[in-house]
Amino acid sequence: MQNLATRMMINVLGIPAILLLTHRGGIAFTLFFTVIAFVSQVELYLLMRRKSYHPLLLAASLAGIVWMFTAYFFPDKLFVLLILLAAIVFLSGLFREVQGATVDIAESIFGFIYLPLMLSTLILLRFGHTEGESVLMMLFAAIWICDSLAYVFGKWLGQKKIAPTISPGKTVVGCIAGVVGALLTVSIFYVLKWSPDSMSFLQVLLFGLLCGTFGQAGDFVESVFKRDTGVKDSSTLLLGHGGMLDRFDSFFIGAPVIFLYMSYLTWIAS
Amino acid sequence: MQNLATRMMINVLGIPAILLLTHRGGIAFTLFFTVIAFVSQVELYLLMRRKSYHPLLLAASLAGIVWMFTAYFFPDKLFVLLILLAAIVFLSGLFREVQGATVDIAESIFGFIYLPLMLSTLILLRFGHTEGESVLMMLFAAIWICDSLAYVFGKWLGQKKIAPTISPGKTVVGCIAGVVGALLTVSIFYVLKWSPDSMSFLQVLLFGLLCGTFGQAGDFVESVFKRDTGVKDSSTLLLGHGGMLDRFDSFFIGAPVIFLYMSYLTWIAS
Repeated sequence: MQNLATRMMINVLGIPAILLLTHRGGIAFTLFFTVIAFVSQVELYLLMRRKSYHPLLLAASLAGIVWMFTAYFFPDKLFVLLILLAAIVFLSGLFREVQGATVDIAESIFGFIYLPLMLSTLILLRFGHTEGESVLMMLFAAIWICDSLAYVFGKWLGQKKIAPTISPGKTVVGCIAGVVGALLTVSIFYVLKWSPDSMSFLQVLLFGLLCGTFGQAGDFVESVFKRDTGVKDSSTLLLGHGGMLDRFDSFFIGAPVIFLYMSYLTWIAS
Repeated sequence: MQNLATRMMINVLGIPAILLLTHRGGIAFTLFFTVIAFVSQVELYLLMRRKSYHPLLLAASLAGIVWMFTAYFFPDKLFVLLILLAAIVFLSGLFREVQGATVDIAESIFGFIYLPLMLSTLILLRFGHTEGESVLMMLFAAIWICDSLAYVFGKWLGQKKIAPTISPGKTVVGCIAGVVGALLTVSIFYVLKWSPDSMSFLQVLLFGLLCGTFGQAGDFVESVFKRDTGVKDSSTLLLGHGGMLDRFDSFFIGAPVIFLYMSYLTWIAS
Protein backbone atom coordinates (compact mmCIF):
# COMPACT_ATOMS: atom_id res chain seq x y z
CA MET A 1 0.00 0.00 0.00
CA GLN A 2 2.96 2.25 0.64
CA ASN A 3 3.82 1.73 -2.99
CA LEU A 4 0.29 2.45 -4.21
CA ALA A 5 -0.07 5.50 -2.00
CA THR A 6 3.20 7.02 -3.21
CA ARG A 7 2.22 6.25 -6.79
CA MET A 8 -1.11 7.98 -6.41
CA MET A 9 0.35 11.03 -4.75
CA ILE A 10 2.95 11.44 -7.47
CA ASN A 11 0.23 11.01 -10.09
CA VAL A 12 -2.15 13.49 -8.49
CA LEU A 13 0.57 16.13 -8.39
CA GLY A 14 2.63 15.11 -11.39
CA ILE A 15 0.07 14.47 -14.12
CA PRO A 16 -1.62 17.88 -14.05
CA ALA A 17 1.80 19.52 -13.87
CA ILE A 18 3.07 17.69 -16.94
CA LEU A 19 -0.14 18.37 -18.89
CA LEU A 20 0.09 22.05 -18.07
CA LEU A 21 3.75 22.20 -19.04
CA THR A 22 3.01 20.36 -22.28
CA HIS A 23 0.27 22.85 -23.08
CA ARG A 24 2.42 25.88 -22.28
CA GLY A 25 5.51 24.47 -23.93
CA GLY A 26 8.62 26.64 -24.05
CA ILE A 27 11.57 26.56 -21.73
CA ALA A 28 9.60 25.38 -18.69
CA PHE A 29 8.63 22.16 -20.48
CA THR A 30 12.24 21.66 -21.53
CA LEU A 31 13.54 22.36 -18.04
CA PHE A 32 11.13 19.86 -16.50
CA PHE A 33 12.24 16.97 -18.68
CA THR A 34 15.85 18.05 -18.36
CA VAL A 35 15.56 17.60 -14.60
CA ILE A 36 14.01 14.17 -15.12
CA ALA A 37 16.77 13.13 -17.51
CA PHE A 38 19.46 14.46 -15.17
CA VAL A 39 18.16 12.80 -12.00
CA SER A 40 17.53 9.52 -13.86
CA GLN A 41 21.03 9.57 -15.29
CA VAL A 42 22.61 10.15 -11.88
CA GLU A 43 20.45 7.35 -10.44
CA LEU A 44 21.51 4.97 -13.18
CA TYR A 45 25.19 5.76 -12.66
CA LEU A 46 24.79 5.23 -8.92
CA LEU A 47 23.27 1.82 -9.65
CA MET A 48 26.24 1.03 -11.91
CA ARG A 49 28.60 1.95 -9.11
CA ARG A 50 27.05 -0.82 -7.04
CA LYS A 51 28.44 -3.17 -9.65
CA SER A 52 31.89 -1.58 -9.28
CA TYR A 53 31.85 0.41 -12.50
CA HIS A 54 32.98 4.01 -12.46
CA PRO A 55 31.05 5.89 -15.12
CA LEU A 56 31.81 9.58 -15.55
CA LEU A 57 28.84 10.42 -13.33
CA LEU A 58 29.01 14.19 -13.19
CA ALA A 59 30.47 14.92 -16.64
CA ALA A 60 28.06 12.64 -18.50
CA SER A 61 25.04 13.91 -16.54
CA LEU A 62 26.01 17.51 -17.26
CA ALA A 63 26.40 16.55 -20.92
CA GLY A 64 22.81 15.28 -20.65
CA ILE A 65 21.65 18.73 -19.55
CA VAL A 66 23.48 20.36 -22.47
CA TRP A 67 21.86 17.82 -24.79
CA MET A 68 18.32 18.52 -23.60
CA PHE A 69 18.70 22.29 -23.95
CA THR A 70 20.26 21.91 -27.38
CA ALA A 71 17.23 19.82 -28.41
CA TYR A 72 15.12 22.85 -27.53
CA PHE A 73 17.27 25.75 -28.73
CA PHE A 74 19.27 24.27 -31.60
CA PRO A 75 17.69 20.96 -32.66
CA ASP A 76 19.56 21.06 -35.96
CA LYS A 77 22.87 21.09 -34.07
CA LEU A 78 22.25 17.83 -32.17
CA PHE A 79 24.25 15.69 -34.54
CA VAL A 80 27.31 17.94 -34.29
CA LEU A 81 26.92 17.95 -30.51
CA LEU A 82 26.81 14.15 -30.53
CA ILE A 83 30.13 14.02 -32.39
CA LEU A 84 31.64 16.58 -30.00
CA LEU A 85 30.54 14.69 -26.89
CA ALA A 86 31.70 11.37 -28.34
CA ALA A 87 35.15 12.79 -29.11
CA ILE A 88 35.39 14.19 -25.57
CA VAL A 89 34.35 10.98 -23.86
CA PHE A 90 36.84 8.87 -25.83
CA LEU A 91 39.62 11.39 -25.15
CA SER A 92 38.75 11.16 -21.44
CA GLY A 93 40.19 7.64 -21.63
CA LEU A 94 43.64 9.25 -21.69
CA PHE A 95 43.11 10.64 -18.20
CA ARG A 96 41.84 7.53 -16.45
CA GLU A 97 43.27 4.28 -15.21
CA VAL A 98 43.84 2.11 -18.27
CA GLN A 99 42.39 -0.87 -16.46
CA GLY A 100 38.61 -0.57 -16.80
CA ALA A 101 38.69 2.54 -19.00
CA THR A 102 36.73 0.86 -21.80
CA VAL A 103 33.87 -0.37 -19.67
CA ASP A 104 33.59 2.84 -17.65
CA ILE A 105 33.38 4.92 -20.81
CA ALA A 106 30.93 2.42 -22.29
CA GLU A 107 28.68 2.66 -19.22
CA SER A 108 28.86 6.47 -19.38
CA ILE A 109 27.75 6.47 -23.01
CA PHE A 110 25.02 3.93 -22.24
CA GLY A 111 23.46 6.20 -19.61
CA PHE A 112 23.62 9.17 -21.94
CA ILE A 113 21.98 7.40 -24.87
CA TYR A 114 19.36 5.65 -22.72
CA LEU A 115 18.25 8.73 -20.81
CA PRO A 116 18.82 12.24 -22.20
CA LEU A 117 19.05 11.15 -25.81
CA MET A 118 15.90 9.07 -25.60
CA LEU A 119 14.00 11.65 -23.54
CA SER A 120 15.04 14.47 -25.86
CA THR A 121 12.61 12.98 -28.39
CA LEU A 122 9.84 14.43 -26.20
CA ILE A 123 11.27 17.91 -26.80
CA LEU A 124 11.70 17.20 -30.51
CA LEU A 125 8.11 15.92 -30.73
CA ARG A 126 6.71 18.91 -28.85
CA PHE A 127 8.52 21.61 -30.83
CA GLY A 128 9.36 19.86 -34.08
CA HIS A 129 5.79 19.15 -35.15
CA THR A 130 3.05 21.63 -35.91
CA GLU A 131 0.72 19.48 -33.80
CA GLY A 132 3.34 18.66 -31.20
CA GLU A 133 1.11 19.53 -28.28
CA SER A 134 -1.65 17.06 -29.19
CA VAL A 135 0.91 14.38 -30.07
CA LEU A 136 2.38 14.63 -26.59
CA MET A 137 -0.98 14.85 -24.82
CA MET A 138 -2.04 11.63 -26.53
CA LEU A 139 1.31 9.99 -25.77
CA PHE A 140 1.17 10.87 -22.08
CA ALA A 141 -2.47 9.85 -21.71
CA ALA A 142 -2.00 6.53 -23.51
CA ILE A 143 1.07 5.58 -21.50
CA TRP A 144 -0.38 6.61 -18.15
CA ILE A 145 -3.69 4.83 -18.71
CA CYS A 146 -1.77 1.81 -19.96
CA ASP A 147 0.48 1.78 -16.88
CA SER A 148 -2.40 2.24 -14.47
CA LEU A 149 -4.62 -0.42 -16.00
CA ALA A 150 -1.70 -2.84 -16.20
CA TYR A 151 -1.01 -2.22 -12.53
CA VAL A 152 -4.60 -2.51 -11.31
CA PHE A 153 -5.64 -5.47 -13.48
CA GLY A 154 -2.38 -7.20 -12.74
CA LYS A 155 -2.97 -6.87 -8.99
CA TRP A 156 -6.64 -7.89 -9.05
CA LEU A 157 -6.96 -10.49 -11.76
CA GLY A 158 -3.47 -11.44 -12.79
CA GLN A 159 -2.21 -14.91 -12.08
CA LYS A 160 0.13 -15.82 -14.89
CA LYS A 161 3.41 -13.93 -14.74
CA ILE A 162 4.68 -12.63 -18.05
CA ALA A 163 8.41 -12.48 -17.30
CA PRO A 164 9.04 -13.54 -13.69
CA THR A 165 12.82 -13.35 -13.96
CA ILE A 166 12.73 -9.74 -15.11
CA SER A 167 9.71 -8.24 -13.41
CA PRO A 168 7.91 -10.55 -10.97
CA GLY A 169 4.99 -8.18 -10.48
CA LYS A 170 3.92 -8.10 -14.13
CA THR A 171 1.15 -10.41 -15.32
CA VAL A 172 -0.18 -11.35 -18.73
CA VAL A 173 -3.63 -10.01 -17.87
CA GLY A 174 -2.11 -6.73 -16.72
CA CYS A 175 -0.14 -6.29 -19.93
CA ILE A 176 -3.15 -6.98 -22.12
CA ALA A 177 -5.28 -4.62 -20.04
CA GLY A 178 -2.58 -1.98 -20.52
CA VAL A 179 -2.59 -2.29 -24.29
CA VAL A 180 -6.39 -2.25 -24.41
CA GLY A 181 -6.36 0.82 -22.19
CA ALA A 182 -3.95 2.60 -24.53
CA LEU A 183 -6.12 1.72 -27.54
CA LEU A 184 -9.25 3.00 -25.79
CA THR A 185 -7.47 6.18 -24.75
CA VAL A 186 -6.37 7.10 -28.25
CA SER A 187 -9.81 6.18 -29.62
CA ILE A 188 -11.40 8.62 -27.19
CA PHE A 189 -8.86 11.24 -28.27
CA TYR A 190 -9.86 10.63 -31.87
CA VAL A 191 -13.60 10.82 -31.19
CA LEU A 192 -13.20 14.05 -29.22
CA LYS A 193 -10.95 15.42 -31.99
CA TRP A 194 -8.07 15.84 -29.55
CA SER A 195 -5.76 13.75 -31.70
CA PRO A 196 -3.62 15.51 -34.34
CA ASP A 197 -5.81 16.55 -37.30
CA SER A 198 -3.34 15.06 -39.74
CA MET A 199 -3.77 11.52 -38.37
CA SER A 200 -6.38 9.03 -39.58
CA PHE A 201 -8.19 6.75 -37.13
CA LEU A 202 -6.02 3.84 -38.17
CA GLN A 203 -2.88 5.89 -37.59
CA VAL A 204 -4.20 6.93 -34.18
CA LEU A 205 -4.93 3.31 -33.29
CA LEU A 206 -1.41 2.27 -34.25
CA PHE A 207 -0.13 5.15 -32.12
CA GLY A 208 -2.02 3.65 -29.17
CA LEU A 209 -0.73 0.17 -29.89
CA LEU A 210 2.85 1.45 -29.97
CA CYS A 211 2.38 3.33 -26.68
CA GLY A 212 0.84 0.27 -25.05
CA THR A 213 3.45 -2.21 -26.18
CA PHE A 214 6.64 -0.14 -26.17
CA GLY A 215 5.68 1.79 -23.06
CA GLN A 216 5.41 -1.52 -21.22
CA ALA A 217 8.50 -2.85 -22.96
CA GLY A 218 10.25 0.22 -21.54
CA ASP A 219 9.24 -0.92 -18.04
CA PHE A 220 10.77 -4.32 -18.66
CA VAL A 221 13.94 -2.86 -20.15
CA GLU A 222 14.47 -0.70 -17.09
CA SER A 223 13.82 -3.74 -14.88
CA VAL A 224 16.51 -5.67 -16.72
CA PHE A 225 19.10 -2.96 -16.13
CA LYS A 226 18.04 -2.53 -12.51
CA ARG A 227 18.13 -6.25 -11.73
CA ASP A 228 21.43 -6.58 -13.52
CA THR A 229 22.92 -4.12 -11.04
CA GLY A 230 21.43 -6.14 -8.22
CA VAL A 231 18.50 -3.95 -7.22
CA LYS A 232 15.51 -6.24 -6.94
CA ASP A 233 12.89 -4.64 -4.81
CA SER A 234 11.31 -1.83 -6.72
CA SER A 235 9.28 -0.61 -3.73
CA THR A 236 12.37 0.46 -1.81
CA LEU A 237 13.54 2.36 -4.86
CA LEU A 238 10.77 4.89 -4.80
CA LEU A 239 12.36 6.60 -1.86
CA GLY A 240 15.93 5.91 -2.84
CA HIS A 241 18.11 5.33 -5.87
CA GLY A 242 16.15 4.69 -9.00
CA GLY A 243 12.95 6.51 -8.06
CA MET A 244 12.95 8.74 -11.12
CA LEU A 245 14.04 5.87 -13.35
CA ASP A 246 11.08 3.83 -12.08
CA ARG A 247 8.62 6.65 -12.57
CA PHE A 248 9.51 7.42 -16.18
CA ASP A 249 10.73 4.07 -17.48
CA SER A 250 7.89 3.76 -20.02
CA PHE A 251 9.05 6.95 -21.71
CA PHE A 252 12.67 5.91 -22.26
CA ILE A 253 11.44 3.50 -24.94
CA GLY A 254 7.89 4.75 -25.58
CA ALA A 255 8.89 8.32 -26.46
CA PRO A 256 11.59 7.43 -29.03
CA VAL A 257 9.29 4.85 -30.65
CA ILE A 258 6.57 7.48 -31.04
CA PHE A 259 9.20 9.91 -32.35
CA LEU A 260 10.14 7.34 -34.98
CA TYR A 261 6.48 6.73 -35.82
CA MET A 262 5.74 10.43 -36.21
CA SER A 263 8.90 10.89 -38.32
CA TYR A 264 7.64 8.09 -40.52
CA LEU A 265 4.18 9.67 -40.86
CA THR A 266 5.74 13.03 -41.72
CA TRP A 267 7.96 11.32 -44.26
CA ILE A 268 5.16 9.44 -46.06
CA ALA A 269 3.00 12.58 -46.05
CA SER A 270 5.68 14.64 -47.77
CA MET B 1 61.57 -4.68 -38.99
CA GLN B 2 58.63 -6.97 -39.58
CA ASN B 3 56.50 -4.17 -38.25
CA LEU B 4 58.12 -1.51 -40.42
CA ALA B 5 58.00 -3.68 -43.53
CA THR B 6 54.28 -4.44 -43.10
CA ARG B 7 53.62 -0.76 -42.44
CA MET B 8 55.40 0.29 -45.58
CA MET B 9 53.67 -2.29 -47.74
CA ILE B 10 50.25 -1.23 -46.48
CA ASN B 11 51.17 2.41 -47.10
CA VAL B 12 52.47 1.82 -50.61
CA LEU B 13 49.26 0.05 -51.59
CA GLY B 14 46.79 1.82 -49.32
CA ILE B 15 47.65 5.49 -49.64
CA PRO B 16 47.28 5.77 -53.43
CA ALA B 17 44.07 3.74 -53.22
CA ILE B 18 42.56 6.03 -50.60
CA LEU B 19 43.61 9.17 -52.48
CA LEU B 20 42.07 7.84 -55.68
CA LEU B 21 38.85 6.89 -53.89
CA THR B 22 38.71 10.31 -52.25
CA HIS B 23 39.11 11.98 -55.63
CA ARG B 24 36.47 9.81 -57.30
CA GLY B 25 34.09 9.94 -54.35
CA GLY B 26 30.72 8.25 -54.70
CA ILE B 27 29.72 4.84 -53.52
CA ALA B 28 33.22 3.33 -53.86
CA PHE B 29 34.62 5.79 -51.32
CA THR B 30 31.72 5.01 -48.99
CA LEU B 31 32.12 1.28 -49.43
CA PHE B 32 35.83 1.46 -48.64
CA PHE B 33 35.36 3.21 -45.31
CA THR B 34 32.36 1.03 -44.53
CA VAL B 35 34.62 -2.01 -44.80
CA ILE B 36 37.15 -0.34 -42.50
CA ALA B 37 34.48 0.54 -39.95
CA PHE B 38 33.01 -2.96 -40.09
CA VAL B 39 36.29 -4.83 -39.71
CA SER B 40 37.44 -2.48 -36.93
CA GLN B 41 34.17 -2.94 -35.09
CA VAL B 42 34.39 -6.73 -35.29
CA GLU B 43 38.01 -6.55 -34.10
CA LEU B 44 37.08 -4.35 -31.15
CA TYR B 45 34.26 -6.69 -30.12
CA LEU B 46 36.61 -9.65 -30.36
CA LEU B 47 39.02 -7.81 -28.05
CA MET B 48 36.14 -7.17 -25.62
CA ARG B 49 35.33 -10.87 -25.63
CA ARG B 50 38.79 -11.53 -24.27
CA LYS B 51 37.65 -9.61 -21.22
CA SER B 52 34.56 -11.83 -20.96
CA TYR B 53 32.07 -9.30 -22.28
CA HIS B 54 29.52 -10.38 -24.85
CA PRO B 55 28.73 -7.41 -27.07
CA LEU B 56 26.17 -7.92 -29.84
CA LEU B 57 28.99 -8.52 -32.30
CA LEU B 58 27.13 -9.24 -35.49
CA ALA B 59 24.04 -7.07 -34.96
CA ALA B 60 26.01 -4.00 -33.90
CA SER B 61 28.54 -4.41 -36.73
CA LEU B 62 25.75 -4.74 -39.29
CA ALA B 63 24.15 -1.63 -37.77
CA GLY B 64 27.51 0.04 -38.46
CA ILE B 65 27.22 -0.83 -42.15
CA VAL B 66 23.69 0.59 -42.28
CA TRP B 67 24.96 3.73 -40.57
CA MET B 68 27.79 4.31 -43.06
CA PHE B 69 25.53 3.91 -46.08
CA THR B 70 22.91 6.16 -44.54
CA ALA B 71 25.62 8.80 -44.08
CA TYR B 72 26.14 8.64 -47.83
CA PHE B 73 22.59 8.24 -49.15
CA PHE B 74 20.45 9.96 -46.51
CA PRO B 75 22.70 12.09 -44.27
CA ASP B 76 19.67 14.03 -43.02
CA LYS B 77 18.17 10.79 -41.67
CA LEU B 78 21.11 9.92 -39.43
CA PHE B 79 19.54 11.29 -36.28
CA VAL B 80 16.34 9.29 -36.77
CA LEU B 81 18.46 6.21 -37.47
CA LEU B 82 20.36 6.79 -34.25
CA ILE B 83 17.10 6.82 -32.27
CA LEU B 84 15.93 3.68 -34.06
CA LEU B 85 19.15 1.78 -33.39
CA ALA B 86 19.20 2.93 -29.75
CA ALA B 87 15.62 1.72 -29.21
CA ILE B 88 16.48 -1.64 -30.76
CA VAL B 89 19.63 -2.16 -28.72
CA PHE B 90 17.87 -1.37 -25.42
CA LEU B 91 14.97 -3.66 -26.34
CA SER B 92 17.50 -6.40 -27.06
CA GLY B 93 18.07 -6.44 -23.30
CA LEU B 94 14.75 -8.30 -22.99
CA PHE B 95 16.14 -11.24 -24.92
CA ARG B 96 19.42 -11.71 -23.08
CA GLU B 97 20.55 -13.01 -19.74
CA VAL B 98 19.71 -10.36 -17.17
CA GLN B 99 23.10 -10.80 -15.55
CA GLY B 100 25.53 -8.71 -17.58
CA ALA B 101 22.90 -7.28 -19.94
CA THR B 102 23.78 -3.69 -19.08
CA VAL B 103 27.49 -3.97 -19.68
CA ASP B 104 27.12 -6.03 -22.86
CA ILE B 105 24.73 -3.48 -24.35
CA ALA B 106 27.02 -0.68 -23.18
CA GLU B 107 30.01 -2.28 -24.88
CA SER B 108 27.98 -2.75 -28.07
CA ILE B 109 27.03 0.93 -28.12
CA PHE B 110 30.62 1.92 -27.36
CA GLY B 111 31.93 0.09 -30.43
CA PHE B 112 29.26 1.61 -32.61
CA ILE B 113 29.88 5.19 -31.49
CA TYR B 114 33.68 4.84 -31.52
CA LEU B 115 33.94 3.29 -34.98
CA PRO B 116 31.14 3.73 -37.57
CA LEU B 117 29.75 6.90 -36.04
CA MET B 118 33.15 8.53 -35.79
CA LEU B 119 34.30 7.30 -39.22
CA SER B 120 31.05 8.41 -40.85
CA THR B 121 32.31 11.98 -40.40
CA LEU B 122 34.69 11.24 -43.30
CA ILE B 123 31.67 10.57 -45.52
CA LEU B 124 29.91 13.67 -44.21
CA LEU B 125 33.04 15.76 -44.82
CA ARG B 126 33.51 14.40 -48.33
CA PHE B 127 29.94 14.86 -49.54
CA GLY B 128 28.58 17.51 -47.16
CA HIS B 129 31.03 20.26 -48.15
CA THR B 130 31.45 21.91 -51.52
CA GLU B 131 35.21 21.50 -51.08
CA GLY B 132 34.95 18.09 -49.44
CA GLU B 133 37.58 16.55 -51.66
CA SER B 134 40.33 19.00 -50.76
CA VAL B 135 39.34 18.90 -47.08
CA LEU B 136 39.85 15.14 -47.03
CA MET B 137 43.04 15.21 -49.08
CA MET B 138 44.55 17.66 -46.60
CA LEU B 139 43.26 15.60 -43.66
CA PHE B 140 44.74 12.35 -44.96
CA ALA B 141 48.06 13.94 -45.90
CA ALA B 142 48.44 15.73 -42.57
CA ILE B 143 47.63 12.64 -40.52
CA TRP B 144 49.83 10.30 -42.54
CA ILE B 145 52.83 12.65 -42.54
CA CYS B 146 52.29 13.22 -38.84
CA ASP B 147 52.15 9.46 -38.12
CA SER B 148 55.20 8.71 -40.23
CA LEU B 149 57.36 11.48 -38.81
CA ALA B 150 56.29 10.58 -35.27
CA TYR B 151 57.30 6.99 -35.94
CA VAL B 152 60.62 7.73 -37.61
CA PHE B 153 61.77 10.49 -35.26
CA GLY B 154 60.56 8.51 -32.29
CA LYS B 155 62.67 5.53 -33.35
CA TRP B 156 65.81 7.51 -34.25
CA LEU B 157 65.98 10.37 -31.82
CA GLY B 158 63.41 9.70 -29.17
CA GLN B 159 64.49 8.97 -25.64
CA LYS B 160 61.88 10.38 -23.35
CA LYS B 161 58.65 8.39 -23.40
CA ILE B 162 55.50 10.46 -23.47
CA ALA B 163 53.08 7.97 -21.89
CA PRO B 164 54.87 4.72 -21.14
CA THR B 165 51.89 3.07 -19.43
CA ILE B 166 49.65 3.61 -22.45
CA SER B 167 51.94 3.41 -25.42
CA PRO B 168 55.56 2.49 -24.65
CA GLY B 169 56.78 3.16 -28.19
CA LYS B 170 55.75 6.81 -28.28
CA THR B 171 58.30 9.49 -27.46
CA VAL B 172 58.09 13.21 -26.83
CA VAL B 173 60.37 13.96 -29.78
CA GLY B 174 58.22 11.79 -32.03
CA CYS B 175 55.02 13.53 -31.03
CA ILE B 176 56.49 16.98 -31.60
CA ALA B 177 57.91 15.88 -34.95
CA GLY B 178 54.44 14.62 -35.87
CA VAL B 179 52.75 17.92 -35.11
CA VAL B 180 55.46 19.86 -36.98
CA GLY B 181 55.02 17.49 -39.91
CA ALA B 182 51.27 18.11 -39.97
CA LEU B 183 51.82 21.88 -39.86
CA LEU B 184 54.34 21.69 -42.71
CA THR B 185 52.00 19.50 -44.75
CA VAL B 186 49.04 21.86 -44.55
CA SER B 187 51.34 24.83 -45.24
CA ILE B 188 52.49 23.17 -48.44
CA PHE B 189 48.86 22.51 -49.34
CA TYR B 190 48.13 26.18 -48.82
CA VAL B 191 51.10 27.37 -50.86
CA LEU B 192 50.21 25.02 -53.73
CA LYS B 193 46.55 26.14 -53.47
CA TRP B 194 45.44 22.58 -52.76
CA SER B 195 43.74 23.62 -49.55
CA PRO B 196 40.04 24.62 -49.69
CA ASP B 197 39.69 28.09 -51.25
CA SER B 198 37.42 29.20 -48.44
CA MET B 199 40.11 28.73 -45.78
CA SER B 200 42.61 31.38 -44.73
CA PHE B 201 46.22 30.45 -43.95
CA LEU B 202 45.55 30.71 -40.24
CA GLN B 203 42.56 28.39 -40.58
CA VAL B 204 44.66 25.96 -42.57
CA LEU B 205 47.38 26.05 -39.90
CA LEU B 206 44.85 25.32 -37.17
CA PHE B 207 43.57 22.46 -39.33
CA GLY B 208 47.09 21.02 -39.33
CA LEU B 209 47.49 21.52 -35.60
CA LEU B 210 44.22 19.67 -34.96
CA CYS B 211 45.25 16.81 -37.25
CA GLY B 212 48.66 16.55 -35.58
CA THR B 213 47.40 16.61 -32.00
CA PHE B 214 44.07 14.77 -32.25
CA GLY B 215 45.34 12.28 -34.78
CA GLN B 216 48.04 11.30 -32.32
CA ALA B 217 45.58 11.48 -29.42
CA GLY B 218 43.52 8.97 -31.41
CA ASP B 219 46.50 6.60 -31.38
CA PHE B 220 46.72 6.87 -27.61
CA VAL B 221 42.99 6.42 -27.14
CA GLU B 222 43.05 3.23 -29.15
CA SER B 223 46.07 2.05 -27.14
CA VAL B 224 44.14 2.61 -23.92
CA PHE B 225 41.22 0.45 -25.08
CA LYS B 226 43.55 -2.20 -26.45
CA ARG B 227 45.65 -2.40 -23.29
CA ASP B 228 42.55 -2.40 -21.15
CA THR B 229 41.48 -5.59 -22.89
CA GLY B 230 44.92 -7.04 -22.26
CA VAL B 231 46.47 -6.78 -25.69
CA LYS B 232 49.90 -5.31 -25.23
CA ASP B 233 52.05 -6.10 -28.18
CA SER B 234 50.90 -4.09 -31.14
CA SER B 235 53.21 -5.86 -33.58
CA THR B 236 51.39 -9.18 -33.22
CA LEU B 237 48.15 -7.36 -33.88
CA LEU B 238 48.97 -6.45 -37.45
CA LEU B 239 48.41 -10.00 -38.50
CA GLY B 240 45.68 -10.79 -36.04
CA HIS B 241 42.92 -9.10 -34.07
CA GLY B 242 43.15 -5.35 -34.06
CA GLY B 243 45.05 -4.85 -37.31
CA MET B 244 42.49 -2.52 -38.83
CA LEU B 245 42.01 -0.73 -35.53
CA ASP B 246 45.76 -0.11 -35.38
CA ARG B 247 45.94 1.10 -38.94
CA PHE B 248 43.18 3.71 -38.71
CA ASP B 249 43.29 4.70 -35.05
CA SER B 250 44.26 8.31 -35.82
CA PHE B 251 41.06 8.78 -37.80
CA PHE B 252 38.66 7.64 -35.07
CA ILE B 253 39.41 10.88 -33.23
CA GLY B 254 41.09 12.97 -35.94
CA ALA B 255 38.21 12.75 -38.43
CA PRO B 256 35.42 13.81 -36.01
CA VAL B 257 37.57 16.67 -34.70
CA ILE B 258 38.09 17.96 -38.23
CA PHE B 259 34.36 17.47 -38.88
CA LEU B 260 33.64 19.66 -35.85
CA TYR B 261 36.18 22.23 -36.99
CA MET B 262 34.75 22.41 -40.51
CA SER B 263 31.21 22.64 -39.08
CA TYR B 264 32.41 25.54 -36.98
CA LEU B 265 34.01 27.28 -39.99
CA THR B 266 30.82 26.80 -42.02
CA TRP B 267 28.80 28.15 -39.13
CA ILE B 268 30.87 31.33 -38.62
CA ALA B 269 30.95 31.94 -42.38
CA SER B 270 27.15 31.83 -42.65
